[in-house]
Amino acid sequence: MDTGDLRSWVETLTLPPPSLSDNTADQERLQSALQKRLGSETIHLALDLVVDLPTQLRRWEYALRCAVVRDTDGWHVCGLTSAGDPAPLCGLAIDLGTTRIVLSLIDLESGQVLQEDSFDNPQGIIGPDVLTRIHYAEEKDGLHHLNRLVVDGLNDMTAALCRKAHIGRDRIVLLALAGNTTMTHLFMGLDPHWIIREPYIPVVNRPGIPSARALGLDVATGARIIIFPNVGSYFGGDLIAGILFSELDRREGTALLVDVGTNAEVILGNQHWLIGCAGAAGPALESGVSSIGTTARPGAIDQVRISGEERHFELHTIDGAPPVGICGSGFIDLAAQLFASGMIDIQGRFVSDVCGPRLTSSDGEQRLIICEAESTDSGKALTISQADLDSLIRSKAAMYTILETITEAVGMTPGQLETFYVAGTFGAFIDPRSAITIGMLPDIPLEYYRPLGNSSLEGAKKVLTQPASLMRLNPIRDRITYMELNVNQAFMNRFSAARFLPHTNPHLFPTVSLRRPLS
Amino acid sequence: MDTGDLRSWVETLTLPPPSLSDNTADQERLQSALQKRLGSETIHLALDLVVDLPTQLRRWEYALRCAVVRDTDGWHVCGLTSAGDPAPLCGLAIDLGTTRIVLSLIDLESGQVLQEDSFDNPQGIIGPDVLTRIHYAEEKDGLHHLNRLVVDGLNDMTAALCRKAHIGRDRIVLLALAGNTTMTHLFMGLDPHWIIREPYIPVVNRPGIPSARALGLDVATGARIIIFPNVGSYFGGDLIAGILFSELDRREGTALLVDVGTNAEVILGNQHWLIGCAGAAGPALESGVSSIGTTARPGAIDQVRISGEERHFELHTIDGAPPVGICGSGFIDLAAQLFASGMIDIQGRFVSDVCGPRLTSSDGEQRLIICEAESTDSGKALTISQADLDSLIRSKAAMYTILETITEAVGMTPGQLETFYVAGTFGAFIDPRSAITIGMLPDIPLEYYRPLGNSSLEGAKKVLTQPASLMRLNPIRDRITYMELNVNQAFMNRFSAARFLPHTNPHLFPTVSLRRPLS
Repeated sequence: MDTGDLRSWVETLTLPPPSLSDNTADQERLQSALQKRLGSETIHLALDLVVDLPTQLRRWEYALRCAVVRDTDGWHVCGLTSAGDPAPLCGLAIDLGTTRIVLSLIDLESGQVLQEDSFDNPQGIIGPDVLTRIHYAEEKDGLHHLNRLVVDGLNDMTAALCRKAHIGRDRIVLLALAGNTTMTHLFMGLDPHWIIREPYIPVVNRPGIPSARALGLDVATGARIIIFPNVGSYFGGDLIAGILFSELDRREGTALLVDVGTNAEVILGNQHWLIGCAGAAGPALESGVSSIGTTARPGAIDQVRISGEERHFELHTIDGAPPVGICGSGFIDLAAQLFASGMIDIQGRFVSDVCGPRLTSSDGEQRLIICEAESTDSGKALTISQADLDSLIRSKAAMYTILETITEAVGMTPGQLETFYVAGTFGAFIDPRSAITIGMLPDIPLEYYRPLGNSSLEGAKKVLTQPASLMRLNPIRDRITYMELNVNQAFMNRFSAARFLPHTNPHLFPTVSLRRPLS
Repeated sequence: MDTGDLRSWVETLTLPPPSLSDNTADQERLQSALQKRLGSETIHLALDLVVDLPTQLRRWEYALRCAVVRDTDGWHVCGLTSAGDPAPLCGLAIDLGTTRIVLSLIDLESGQVLQEDSFDNPQGIIGPDVLTRIHYAEEKDGLHHLNRLVVDGLNDMTAALCRKAHIGRDRIVLLALAGNTTMTHLFMGLDPHWIIREPYIPVVNRPGIPSARALGLDVATGARIIIFPNVGSYFGGDLIAGILFSELDRREGTALLVDVGTNAEVILGNQHWLIGCAGAAGPALESGVSSIGTTARPGAIDQVRISGEERHFELHTIDGAPPVGICGSGFIDLAAQLFASGMIDIQGRFVSDVCGPRLTSSDGEQRLIICEAESTDSGKALTISQADLDSLIRSKAAMYTILETITEAVGMTPGQLETFYVAGTFGAFIDPRSAITIGMLPDIPLEYYRPLGNSSLEGAKKVLTQPASLMRLNPIRDRITYMELNVNQAFMNRFSAARFLPHTNPHLFPTVSLRRPLS
């Protein structure tokens, strides 16, 4: 049987009871019943599940529900309960972000989400980014410490979700985890040292479906965890999850998926081919480098409008809370509005005449007041500097160059794309119009842009609830041609050209010129 | 590649070093090199071996020796070292007997035995036989205690062997264990409760090749242990090992293999068919039930000759030590000689006239003096009672009935057998002539009898040193038709007929009648 025929990872079985003429062992009795149901492949039933099997089978009168999962080497039994047990066998989907970790507790049979919650990646206390953590992992006990931080964090949040759902942690029999290559390595306790050193070699590409308890997770005996494969050091399982979720690999038309963070990861393709690349975009697009940069949390400015001759600032914050800072999408909005209102020029420099009294100077540095002290959460004014803007422009130029390079590599123009997916929190909050205005995203019709939400989490949920989708993971991974973004002269030329607002070549952004009445 | 083409379980490999154009992960790099060598099946490389792989590969400059083993789900890597490492990768063969455990440390590449030693099964402190231990396993913590006893014992003996061989325990990467079904279950921590209860169901039939460390053995990270499969509760892996070692499954001619102990286990067959059965033979044939019964150890009487009109007793002891008791094979010799000399009749009863002063009486019980007090180790006379003889005769009758039943079931007579293997210590010490004299073994030409030695250990050594033989284990197991020895009226009639010396039907034992000049 193909997984395509499975409605869920849980099978209900009634075994023929043993007799003198059928003295097959308990383990083999279950295996052979599963084999009849699932096909002739090997049925793995690990020792830790076998230990209690004799008692269970007799107590359950040979009628049981059995959670299975299919790996390259056959089927693995990952959880057992009686046929009549009213409690569900559960799955746990994990989006293992560098900054934030999201967990979703799922009823494996109905596919229903029982609980969902998120927490900051506890490795943040070591350093905010992948690089700091990799360097820390090289210190004595560093790797072990990083591993413990994330595993303990996962166990705590899992316990909290289970409490809220009124189920035991031993009901979680199948997990799925999607994260970038470094986060996945740290979770598995694997040394990330070589990930950042030429020629950039991860320890594993296909972690497979190991025992969840062997990795320190406090879940059911026998539980297994689907760890999304990576294509390389810079193209992780989170992206594979995004492809799976967006179904980009199954469409006739070509689509592009971009995940924006410190790294910009891009995948372009359709049902016939997939090409991926990743490049440093700088931190400005995520939480920002400016003193007022923040992640998307309550009070973060996520939308900015500058209107009228007086250049009145309208700020929107997440949850309407008093402003605490500005998140990546807010910063892009701000830059677009500053440019559209003429307050910054095509090089992103403050235009003093237009900025007026909002432009202040301290310690020889020009700063633009975004929000006056009396309106902010801290009572201090929120300002941005020229350096902040320069950083944003470098980031948007890098992003655009990556997008331009990959589409040109396949002989396409952005206008030929059917869909342009923007993943993550960034994708959910960003206004594509603003991103186009500053020349970060290509100038294609707005309706082509599609926010994808937390595609890493959604991909993980998908393999837990739609068995057939698990079989797509490795084929997707294997189909991806990874394009190494060699930072050569051609790339640098493109990058330089993209360091203007929106670009040195205005023909690439026809709608932006049309929309600039204020300049 | 088939395992038939492998000279040993160790492969020497040189991996292509990573480059920008070949950024495959370390794990996949090794897997794909092994796949090229071994074939397209899945190559399993467990996480515990992957952890150190990045450092090792770079230190070894990508040249390595790799121990592998093949299971039904593909190849498993079980040990790694550098190509130039002078120390061997080792195997450990284990004969897990109820009474005695034998270990053999082997160089996996050369197949050479480095060290070999044995020790009493530490579970003996709980009880000497399988039944006592199964009942003990049902008590609180009983199973855990039995498991710890055997695992700790194995670890201690392994450490001692390694010290003598001047190698670290972390050089042991592949193990093979053959034992009866109960011993195997206790070793794996599996509940043997149902083994002795109708319909006699083991927990597992095919334990496969699990992680050795997961089972508590203190050997190399990643080491795996081949656990011989069983056919049922009463036909264990030790018998499968015997078949593998004797090559009984590959011969044109039909052979019989008997393993004599508390249970008599018998396998009959050739390259076309295999039929097995097992039945209780009583303890008399192993260490005996008499007060002077002992295992085959220094001082055990293993040969007896009674000569002349005076019926002079000549006793041979193991290592020539002062007599401490009589072992199973010695007891058979004694009974044969007592019968041949007319000291017991065809019902096994003492003939007072012939026994003379050796026959004493105390507490209303007749006892025959085998060895006078002044010659024994303890200073007390060694004697046997009528009850001891009755017990032996029941055991020999059971054994003969089992042999008769299985050969008749396939329409053969014992004379049609090509070879009659007798396994174990018993097989090594027994005099077939004596066994025939008392009608325990069929009256066929003596040259057909072949002692097989410790076939359980030899089978385990064989799968470690001859990769192709491992692939025969499951097929042998699957080919065996297990014949349930239903104790019905026909069986009981045969049993009753066999309770005479040598048998109620003297035509079955023509040479015994000829050899009885003394009666």
